[in-house]
Amino acid sequence: MNPDSIQVPMQRWSPGVRPTGPATDAIAIEEPLEIRVAGRSVAVVMRTPGQDRELAAGFLLTEGVIRQADELLDILPCRDQAGGLSGNVINVLLAPTVAVDFTRLTRHVFSSSSCGVCGKATLDAVLQAFPPVTPGPAFAPARLAELPARLRAAQPAFAATGGLHGCALFSPAGELETVREDVGRHNALDKVLGGALLERRLPLAGHGLLLSGRISFELVQKALAAGVPLIAGIGAPSSLAFECADRGGITLVGFLRADRMNVYTHAARLGL
Amino acid sequence: MNPDSIQVPMQRWSPGVRPTGPATDAIAIEEPLEIRVAGRSVAVVMRTPGQDRELAAGFLLTEGVIRQADELLDILPCRDQAGGLSGNVINVLLAPTVAVDFTRLTRHVFSSSSCGVCGKATLDAVLQAFPPVTPGPAFAPARLAELPARLRAAQPAFAATGGLHGCALFSPAGELETVREDVGRHNALDKVLGGALLERRLPLAGHGLLLSGRISFELVQKALAAGVPLIAGIGAPSSLAFECADRGGITLVGFLRADRMNVYTHAARLGL
Repeated sequence: MNPDSIQVPMQRWSPGVRPTGPATDAIAIEEPLEIRVAGRSVAVVMRTPGQDRELAAGFLLTEGVIRQADELLDILPCRDQAGGLSGNVINVLLAPTVAVDFTRLTRHVFSSSSCGVCGKATLDAVLQAFPPVTPGPAFAPARLAELPARLRAAQPAFAATGGLHGCALFSPAGELETVREDVGRHNALDKVLGGALLERRLPLAGHGLLLSGRISFELVQKALAAGVPLIAGIGAPSSLAFECADRGGITLVGFLRADRMNVYTHAARLGL
Repeated sequence: MNPDSIQVPMQRWSPGVRPTGPATDAIAIEEPLEIRVAGRSVAVVMRTPGQDRELAAGFLLTEGVIRQADELLDILPCRDQAGGLSGNVINVLLAPTVAVDFTRLTRHVFSSSSCGVCGKATLDAVLQAFPPVTPGPAFAPARLAELPARLRAAQPAFAATGGLHGCALFSPAGELETVREDVGRHNALDKVLGGALLERRLPLAGHGLLLSGRISFELVQKALAAGVPLIAGIGAPSSLAFECADRGGITLVGFLRADRMNVYTHAARLGL
């Protein structure tokens, strides 16, 4: 049985209270799972380990590949080269009557390394593609604390629907320079970064990114691709987001509120 | 300029107050966007229309295909067969020096129809693959209102991390039968439905699904694949989730709280 969360070091900030040293926080585990059908890779999903057989069965059901349990002959974790069970690859054997359109199914995360499917291999590939960020400017915690209210004021469609993720690019002075909304948080971030690219402003070494929700690995990877040195989210980070920020030199702030925040990585950029 | 939201009819429920007739609510627009590189499809993302050039540029940047604006020669909306601009297909022309690994990039939603990329075509394909749900049992609004508290009590990892989506299968009496948590809300739902498949309980015509967050199209499509007649979410639905539930015969409940909820489709199943 895999645990759902791990403990990581971090610092809590609140106004006028200097952190007395590292604290810890429990964050949700995020790891890639490669789903194979008859040995052929059909998808890599970023998931919390556990109930992987159910996840693979549900994926194939809801993608329209299978309709009933009879079409599933077996679901087996794969063995790695050393003969041990790999926790992150699962192979599904289907009844011969099931037709699979592999071209339609295939979906991958940024990189599934040929040397193994795991969070570390994923990060290795990402760090090879995108270098760590440069030190960049300092950000004052008090300026970050003002951001949630500014984002709410700048999200007219969220106010109307309650159904849009927001993403903003901000300066060290706490000014929101670009705000984008989308039903998908990956899209909202891609719109912000794509806009900066089109305006020839990359790398964004002097800016931070504000996210209205939780902070997953893929969002940190996108920030790294644009050279952003700080990510502040209203929600919680995942374990792989934490590791990606740590190795990429990015300051990762979670649970950002007007009166407190958790600083998970590279706290020196905030003077902590 | 596309609007971010549309008005849809719905009914508000609160204890002891019989809805006096249809009200309306603004919900966020969700539509597919197909991103092509030199005419070749590389991805279909479900997004809120607007800033599609930025989205395409950001997608290619953060997937590691391009690094700077010089590598983008042009980003153009595609014309449909009638010669008009298709709002949901965008074509990117890259500098000849850019190598694109198409096999790694490709990611599709359930179905991009050959007759056009739009919400309606997507729904047509989904409804062709999965029939509308059967009428099934009645659900009492008062039982639904109890669900958020029950889900919180049943989500130990969320309580520890604040970083996990929850999904539960419940009976008309409001009993949570299966609860799964994951960093990805699609995964949490796939785990619940895959577990039911493995237990040979499909179609789930006598159950409802509880979602801890917002309700996107893909989540409704997954429920339809398993024959679930009711979806209740703590968050807001998107436009395409609304339409998919409407056409699929699914009762869609949003903003579920202990003392109120919005019923967007097939309210008769709740006696409204």
